Amino acid sequence: MQVIRTIKELSVLEKSKTVVLVPTMGALHEGHRKLIQEGSTLKTDNVTLIVSIYINPIQFNDAVDLEKYPRTIDEDYKMCEEEGVDIIFMPSDSEMYPSRPLVNVTETSLSKGLCGSKRPGHFDGVCTVVTKLFNLIKPNYAVFGKKDYQQLSVIRQLVKDLNYDIKIVAVDTQREVNGLAISSRNQQLTTKEKEKSAVIYKALNAMAKSSRTVSSEIIDLGKSILEEESKCIHIDYIEIVDRTNLNKLEIIDRPALAAIAVKVGKTRLIDNIEIDFE
Amino acid sequence: MQVIRTIKELSVLEKSKTVVLVPTMGALHEGHRKLIQEGSTLKTDNVTLIVSIYINPIQFNDAVDLEKYPRTIDEDYKMCEEEGVDIIFMPSDSEMYPSRPLVNVTETSLSKGLCGSKRPGHFDGVCTVVTKLFNLIKPNYAVFGKKDYQQLSVIRQLVKDLNYDIKIVAVDTQREVNGLAISSRNQQLTTKEKEKSAVIYKALNAMAKSSRTVSSEIIDLGKSILEEESKCIHIDYIEIVDRTNLNKLEIIDRPALAAIAVKVGKTRLIDNIEIDFE
Repeated sequence: MQVIRTIKELSVLEKSKTVVLVPTMGALHEGHRKLIQEGSTLKTDNVTLIVSIYINPIQFNDAVDLEKYPRTIDEDYKMCEEEGVDIIFMPSDSEMYPSRPLVNVTETSLSKGLCGSKRPGHFDGVCTVVTKLFNLIKPNYAVFGKKDYQQLSVIRQLVKDLNYDIKIVAVDTQREVNGLAISSRNQQLTTKEKEKSAVIYKALNAMAKSSRTVSSEIIDLGKSILEEESKCIHIDYIEIVDRTNLNKLEIIDRPALAAIAVKVGKTRLIDNIEIDFE
Repeated sequence: MQVIRTIKELSVLEKSKTVVLVPTMGALHEGHRKLIQEGSTLKTDNVTLIVSIYINPIQFNDAVDLEKYPRTIDEDYKMCEEEGVDIIFMPSDSEMYPSRPLVNVTETSLSKGLCGSKRPGHFDGVCTVVTKLFNLIKPNYAVFGKKDYQQLSVIRQLVKDLNYDIKIVAVDTQREVNGLAISSRNQQLTTKEKEKSAVIYKALNAMAKSSRTVSSEIIDLGKSILEEESKCIHIDYIEIVDRTNLNKLEIIDRPALAAIAVKVGKTRLIDNIEIDFE
């Protein structure tokens, strides 16, 4: 395994036939392991599997959040080594943003609801850094998790609208035994908070299994389940959206997504579940 | 010479070692010929020279202007053939924009003054289509003219900020015998208007040769020369800017650019000249 820290080193790499990219912000956990493993399944001869580790400052709209974001680089190396990663790309801020970027990539629709309305500028930061990584690494495949469903949708749109010849591989959310979606931010939870946070997936599951078709009723159901734990769970949003355009859905008459964001203590957690329509 | 009209045909092309792109909107003239010739000088073994011809609707903020934009496809083919172009890429609107694009590339500083302030959204449209063409064609070199100096600056910034591994080749403005910068829009001028429009370059030259260093005085000089022809020339802007960031410059104490936009009848013409600083 090779660790590349500069754009120059990256640019002189001999190009293999197929490049698979797993973009991360480090603090790798079992969710990332699954992304890397999915990337590995694409490995045949002459395939390079690259994990990028870069905490992208321009997608944080809260300096404290950026500061608090976990960094576990030794463990990250270990996991990549275990999973047969060929290259870790770990650029510096000064290489990624030598000066304030004047050119940005923005998304004007999918990024506006859900987390987008709570984190202004976040998805523009994501689009811009992903475009930069795509141009630097020139992958044929890029692997993203469904836990960040809105991000996945935005990136799919970016690939389509900007004509990238890149296949986006979407990987199911990995969960703790109690159902809590695995996230780097879980490290910030106390044991007690972690236990209580299991209610998020419990609520999502109940919503997906409900026989109701009026979204507001299904949302009320989810809300009532979350509110049983209301002592430490504060709802940021709970929504049902059209899975293709992420617009709010009144009636479940097409493939939908139930999405929840909560604050548990000082930690913001998100999760979602697909609601199929037969 | 091969004419490629679909993205699919383009994607199955065998990739040569080096690709040179000359992006155009067609209506090719002697200015484009020079761009193509500059591209040709990069031709050694295993180099493909591609001219794209695509009138990008999203960079026109005026439907009439888009409608009026000249189309001379037979002559365009002829010139490309004469200049040894390997491929003309001529996609349709429905392939370039199968639906309203949700992801856009925007520039927030260089694009705001000069023509940017007169044509809102224009440079975002340019950035977005150039990004699409870069991703589709994957050039190693892309050739742009200095007549559209602001466009050139914006594209250089795009390449830098988004980490494209593409060298931008800048080509000097080509001129009619009377000094008028060659432009597709010149076709819209009457013979009389064409004659009168020579005053634009006359004004720019006088500005560049002036021994004054206070921009407002140099601008007044240019204005007075243009105003001699004021019966058919209407000044849109006349400015002196810092060549590196395109900010207005009070005193010429660094490499500068004098830029003029006028309306001659119904036709908008732009031109510029570099003012060096010793």
